[in-house]
Amino acid sequence: MNIKVVSKILDANDRLAETNRRKLKAAGIYTINLMGAPGAGKTSLLECVLDTLKGSLRIGIIEGDIAGADDARRIALYNVPVVQINTGGACHLDANMIGEVLNELPLDEIDMLIIENVGNLVCPAEFSLGEDIKIMVSGVTEGHDKPGKYPLMFRQSNALILNKTDLLPYVNIDMGKFRSDALSLNPEIKIFEVSCKTRDGIGEFCQWLRLQR
Amino acid sequence: MNIKVVSKILDANDRLAETNRRKLKAAGIYTINLMGAPGAGKTSLLECVLDTLKGSLRIGIIEGDIAGADDARRIALYNVPVVQINTGGACHLDANMIGEVLNELPLDEIDMLIIENVGNLVCPAEFSLGEDIKIMVSGVTEGHDKPGKYPLMFRQSNALILNKTDLLPYVNIDMGKFRSDALSLNPEIKIFEVSCKTRDGIGEFCQWLRLQR
Repeated sequence: MNIKVVSKILDANDRLAETNRRKLKAAGIYTINLMGAPGAGKTSLLECVLDTLKGSLRIGIIEGDIAGADDARRIALYNVPVVQINTGGACHLDANMIGEVLNELPLDEIDMLIIENVGNLVCPAEFSLGEDIKIMVSGVTEGHDKPGKYPLMFRQSNALILNKTDLLPYVNIDMGKFRSDALSLNPEIKIFEVSCKTRDGIGEFCQWLRLQR
Repeated sequence: MNIKVVSKILDANDRLAETNRRKLKAAGIYTINLMGAPGAGKTSLLECVLDTLKGSLRIGIIEGDIAGADDARRIALYNVPVVQINTGGACHLDANMIGEVLNELPLDEIDMLIIENVGNLVCPAEFSLGEDIKIMVSGVTEGHDKPGKYPLMFRQSNALILNKTDLLPYVNIDMGKFRSDALSLNPEIKIFEVSCKTRDGIGEFCQWLRLQR
């Protein structure tokens, strides 16, 4: 008797993420899943990236929020294609939501798609959207204890942006401990210290971003 | 024929929250569910409250984190009963977790139990733990756009602590807009501006907290 054994069945989200990935690859788009806590500065980082790379790369943006379109309005000022997803309560984006809105973007006019996830250090790390890389943002105002408390996102991310370095003189944070704890969870994670306010470190990060593609 | 109609069956979490509530009430304990984004300063606020109220109230603490016991170690320095829950991935505490650990606390030696939820502006607001009131903390470094993006927690909370006011000179935040947007979601919410670093505003908040009980 011939018994068929199927070793791994993709769960629904992974299957839809794979569909997104194929579609984005076919359009020649490099895709980034941008994650971080509420108020870490994800949208501010996007503004810096758009300012820096807009001339050399065609960037498209998907904004994820539970409610409202504040972030999409900020991004629209840069005259780039942007779609706002409202999750209506869900604490993260998933592949199904991304699949639903991809056709709202002019995919043949985009080189790099950046998806700003819902502000949350936990659940977004659990759901692939079909991205090429994950980048997480953490404000130095959040403290150095974040890697130990939210390990999954640090493990999953290709890069960690330590934002708000302009506030370093005014906060108690052990940057050495933050870095070493992040690296012990994920030795491959690339760490950038930036200030979206003063633009310190933005050039170096944008250069790395362009090379990833 | 006699048909029985049951109009509202409590969901599992609400049922367990009710059990916790009855048990806490029976022990004469006033219970607070403390919520906020990662790094908003929930544990720092607890440290200020313990410093201020320890002489006049017997306080017990439950710490909720995905992993680690950093916060419980900080609280233990104050010589108050403390239990650390590790959710092991779950992005919020629920009534079942609280029910499981209540017996680890000396309930007859506690007047006020403060439960510090997992750092997350979304999901904790959806799960009652059996508390009397909910208090949320938001750092002024997180920006004034939080009410519109995370409306449920603002609607659910009895008080909003705007923390890190010592950093106000260095950040771009419209405190008037933050306040008015929070109040338009929840006209009853009591707002306190505090700095856990300089202790500004802590006395007023602690006085209010004592009166709630």
